[in-house]
Amino acid sequence: MSSIILTFSGGIDSTILLWHLRERGDTVRCLSVNYGQRHIRELTAAEEIAKLAGCEHRIIDLSNLRPLLSGSSQTSDEVEVPEGHYAAESMKLTVVPNRNMILLAVAGAWAVSTKSEAVAYAAHAGDHAIYPDCREEFASVIGQVLELCDWHPIQLWRPFIRWSKADIVKEGERLNVPFGLTWSCYKGGSLHCGKCGTCTERQEAFTAADVADPTVYQ
Amino acid sequence: MSSIILTFSGGIDSTILLWHLRERGDTVRCLSVNYGQRHIRELTAAEEIAKLAGCEHRIIDLSNLRPLLSGSSQTSDEVEVPEGHYAAESMKLTVVPNRNMILLAVAGAWAVSTKSEAVAYAAHAGDHAIYPDCREEFASVIGQVLELCDWHPIQLWRPFIRWSKADIVKEGERLNVPFGLTWSCYKGGSLHCGKCGTCTERQEAFTAADVADPTVYQ
Repeated sequence: MSSIILTFSGGIDSTILLWHLRERGDTVRCLSVNYGQRHIRELTAAEEIAKLAGCEHRIIDLSNLRPLLSGSSQTSDEVEVPEGHYAAESMKLTVVPNRNMILLAVAGAWAVSTKSEAVAYAAHAGDHAIYPDCREEFASVIGQVLELCDWHPIQLWRPFIRWSKADIVKEGERLNVPFGLTWSCYKGGSLHCGKCGTCTERQEAFTAADVADPTVYQ
Repeated sequence: MSSIILTFSGGIDSTILLWHLRERGDTVRCLSVNYGQRHIRELTAAEEIAKLAGCEHRIIDLSNLRPLLSGSSQTSDEVEVPEGHYAAESMKLTVVPNRNMILLAVAGAWAVSTKSEAVAYAAHAGDHAIYPDCREEFASVIGQVLELCDWHPIQLWRPFIRWSKADIVKEGERLNVPFGLTWSCYKGGSLHCGKCGTCTERQEAFTAADVADPTVYQ
């Protein structure tokens, strides 16, 4: 039983990770960040889910960073969200500059002030090489930074790092995760678009896991 | 000649570093952060100095992080700013949880979006062991994170790391830095208090450097 800060988007991966940690008996604090992302809808999902889980949840508004984060479709109205498969070159537009370092730094701050043992996030084996800050080497040195950022070492936990997204969905089914409350779509409409990279990946994961997908796609 | 993001507090160290980099011909963008610190006065100083230097300057308001940063005198009204020498145990109260990782992550984001070669900051040999995120090992792994956070590696520059604060003040004199515009005091009054850790250190540095200190102390 540990005290954990979970970076929590309200998507399927981090929601399943929340259920996974609760089953272990960990005390989980959920951190969501508004960094001016187009798909602000995910924060409403995060709020509902954390409430259902009975966890402390903080949404930190970092949209003031927006002037520094130019050039990404997720933080700029001038850049269209690309459709199609994640592997495509066009998905590079969805990269938010240095997002993971910022997110994990903020999670680290909360871990320092709550004397938590670890920061957890739902990185998985299917994370894509188009994101420089999803690389294994990146996570490894971030882990070292968190160990040194305070006098009590904070660990970086990535329990799903060897799992496929389908494996994660199977774990979610075992844990009775309320899939219907989670949000993935990058476009930020009232329904999942079914066409952007995250929607494509979400659909494929349910299919590969042979789990019923309750999501309503547009 | 490089393009550099400088973390810029408006204090003497980062101001002298700005002049030092300008002399080399680097293009410097100055980043200041409002993280809800008590000594908000330093941001006005930073603004004036960057203007005088003719540099692009952004002040990013991260005071939304305040609920996560409990327990520091610099971000909480309930904790008094300790007086006396930095070396004292009481100075631990001035530690803002994970501040340097957050600051360097935000600087890194701006470096990614402006395709800058480096992030610079004015760490020096006198930085204190009471701050876990001033440790050499910490800076070393942060440097590795910045190299990996984008497809173009970003360097971490700490040109003053082997200098004492007195050495830095001497460099400032050589470069005609407007010392009187800089701000150090942690208390945030209209004049430097002359008693807190940073004021004490500031006075000692001018004395040790044998440079006239134009600061008016209360």
